[in-house]
Amino acid sequence: MDTIPTNVEPLIERAATAVFSSIDSDGFPNTRALLPPRAREGLKHFYFTTNTSSCKAAHLAVNPKACLYFYDASRFIGVMLIGTAAIVRDEASLALVWRKGDEQYYPQGIDDPDYAVLKFTAHTLRYYSDFNPRDYRL
Amino acid sequence: MDTIPTNVEPLIERAATAVFSSIDSDGFPNTRALLPPRAREGLKHFYFTTNTSSCKAAHLAVNPKACLYFYDASRFIGVMLIGTAAIVRDEASLALVWRKGDEQYYPQGIDDPDYAVLKFTAHTLRYYSDFNPRDYRL
Repeated sequence: MDTIPTNVEPLIERAATAVFSSIDSDGFPNTRALLPPRAREGLKHFYFTTNTSSCKAAHLAVNPKACLYFYDASRFIGVMLIGTAAIVRDEASLALVWRKGDEQYYPQGIDDPDYAVLKFTAHTLRYYSDFNPRDYRL
Repeated sequence: MDTIPTNVEPLIERAATAVFSSIDSDGFPNTRALLPPRAREGLKHFYFTTNTSSCKAAHLAVNPKACLYFYDASRFIGVMLIGTAAIVRDEASLALVWRKGDEQYYPQGIDDPDYAVLKFTAHTLRYYSDFNPRDYRL
């Protein structure tokens, strides 16, 4: 298997936003920017805070297929991760993403019923550089 | 019908990139940044340059469902357009997007067989502001 380019992880670390796509109930892709992931395990698992009541949660319950994209517009490079996503509320995941200050939005703290984790799991990475995409299995 | 917020068009005009999502042959959303549209008709039709041989062209031939997203990360505002897209090569569309300098990449000019137009047509606009999405029919 080809080695993933060394500048992929720095690009992800530097990105001010992550762009996340799910598929809505009519089968259309829905894309929006998210704050950067609160935690990640290599290039395989990414953890974001979200609301139990968000559109994404409804989409993912029906269709878990998703895409996570990071890019640097100034250098025309991007990383497209293709995989699945789910809204999870297990204790370990909640503790992983919780940060001091979150109680401002979730007054009941980590157990607030609207506090949830968007967990994305990648299976393919596509690296765009010089308008030349290359795929890597994860 | 509600009136679309007046800052939607300026946001689109200012955006350095457009983020486009199609659906691949396995049903996964695929998201990537594009250079801004070369032309648009209001909020309904958007025209980009593309290659006949691109991944997007293959996806859209099978599934035209698509999403076009513009955002301003510094102000937490975004415009998600949901609709359909197609690769077109009619003379009017090609002439609409062609710019002096394109012959550098397409030596045969506007008739270069790899030169094509990605035309996106929106049916719904979702405006994100203060983490509060609102939908508008187009």
